[in-house]
Amino acid sequence: MEPLILDGKKVADDIKERLQTRVGELKNQGISPCLATILVGDDPSSETYVKMKGNACERLGILSKRIHLPKETTTEELLDTIYQLNQDSTVHGILLQHPVPSHIDERAAFESIAIEKDVDGVTSLGFGQTTFGFGDFPSCTPAAIIEIINYYNVELEGKHAVVIGRSPILGKPVSMMLLNRNATVTTCHSYTENLPEMIKSADIVVAAVGKPNFIKGEWLKEGAVVLDAGYNKGNIGDVEYETCFEKASAITPVPGGVGPVTISMLLKQTVDSAEKMGVSVK
Amino acid sequence: MEPLILDGKKVADDIKERLQTRVGELKNQGISPCLATILVGDDPSSETYVKMKGNACERLGILSKRIHLPKETTTEELLDTIYQLNQDSTVHGILLQHPVPSHIDERAAFESIAIEKDVDGVTSLGFGQTTFGFGDFPSCTPAAIIEIINYYNVELEGKHAVVIGRSPILGKPVSMMLLNRNATVTTCHSYTENLPEMIKSADIVVAAVGKPNFIKGEWLKEGAVVLDAGYNKGNIGDVEYETCFEKASAITPVPGGVGPVTISMLLKQTVDSAEKMGVSVK
Repeated sequence: MEPLILDGKKVADDIKERLQTRVGELKNQGISPCLATILVGDDPSSETYVKMKGNACERLGILSKRIHLPKETTTEELLDTIYQLNQDSTVHGILLQHPVPSHIDERAAFESIAIEKDVDGVTSLGFGQTTFGFGDFPSCTPAAIIEIINYYNVELEGKHAVVIGRSPILGKPVSMMLLNRNATVTTCHSYTENLPEMIKSADIVVAAVGKPNFIKGEWLKEGAVVLDAGYNKGNIGDVEYETCFEKASAITPVPGGVGPVTISMLLKQTVDSAEKMGVSVK
Repeated sequence: MEPLILDGKKVADDIKERLQTRVGELKNQGISPCLATILVGDDPSSETYVKMKGNACERLGILSKRIHLPKETTTEELLDTIYQLNQDSTVHGILLQHPVPSHIDERAAFESIAIEKDVDGVTSLGFGQTTFGFGDFPSCTPAAIIEIINYYNVELEGKHAVVIGRSPILGKPVSMMLLNRNATVTTCHSYTENLPEMIKSADIVVAAVGKPNFIKGEWLKEGAVVLDAGYNKGNIGDVEYETCFEKASAITPVPGGVGPVTISMLLKQTVDSAEKMGVSVK
């Protein structure tokens, strides 16, 4: 039997439709939701990502304040930019595009984002709040994965979810969010012994490893649900789609899976923040 | 072959011996390290725990400022007490004994502890920092488990650690700390299907479930390392000691395992804080 295709575009459209109404209502109150994006340097893929996010904002009527800093920017200069955006009452969300040039202390930069504007969910405080079951803005890709799971009513309670990857914005938060939804969660990574065997026991597989076509169909249990959060060069996921398609009961495609939902979650969290801050734009 | 007994008392004595020197040096500089403990209500076991911690401080020359609030204390009153301790430059660490009476918002109280005085590691910010590999004060019981692992050179890299329990001060942080030490980590809980089967695949088992004698020897893989963080009424662990003793290659006893090391970690983190704050007492 062919697996259910977990259509991220459909999930994203659904979110954006509901957002449209909320953006309209905010504007009626004189509030223009605004996401500030910060790009440092000129890595072409980062440039593409940040442009995509800015454009997605504008299509929905969310202002996009695009800040592009030269690659020589120091940590202090970047912190200063973030500090100004923290203070700016017309800005409701701040996104610092990852990665920044290696001479910058990226963690310090992320940590300097005010919690109430951390709509991309990158601060350690935001992560802790999400893990402990409160807080407003989970990291966007994990939030997107949960959103897809909700949309398609994938059963989590008591199921074994195996997450491959342990980054601060993906593997770790998605592990904690699946745990909060009562899944039994295993987090794997480059040191994991017998990865295929571990994946074989998974009811739900979340690929967040950053290696193209890494997860093979033969590693899956028959009927596993496969969520591919990978986006590698050439729009290739972490999951070998053809072979996993044969074994999975449900699977996200790449492109058109987790990616579009991630952007929608960013928009949603910006609107949430604007509603909460409620400061009007002159 | 009999398992190695992971002797928490020995680990704790070793920590306290090194602390003694540091406390002496602080006093030479006119700094008296001080832990404030807050007990709300008169639950007898909480009273015992908080007294044990205060006494452990004093035996080491750490001041213990013991605050006992009546069980009718409101959330606002408790927050106010914590606020005053945050401001008090003679206090280097704050411990709020868990649980507080049910009418109090315990999470709000924990969150109000200033990060630089959160020596018990209960805030969401502290948890996030620990998970992301920085931050000064991990939660004390998870820190104790890692300390025992270090002391006895238990190999973690690539090994499968199964944590049973997912509380904010134990199951979740110990999972993240084991993950940071390159173990593959599975977090289990009351909804986990086939818990015995999951435990069977573990090289390291961390019991943090709060049910006496819950983990059975027959569930273990031959040669597993068993760390029992349970402390149930009558000084009984979460691990059925006799049967697990037969299968494990190393095991913590209860009492005399994780417990004494937890208290030592609290003392250590209080001294760390005093060294960092460096404010002298008049």
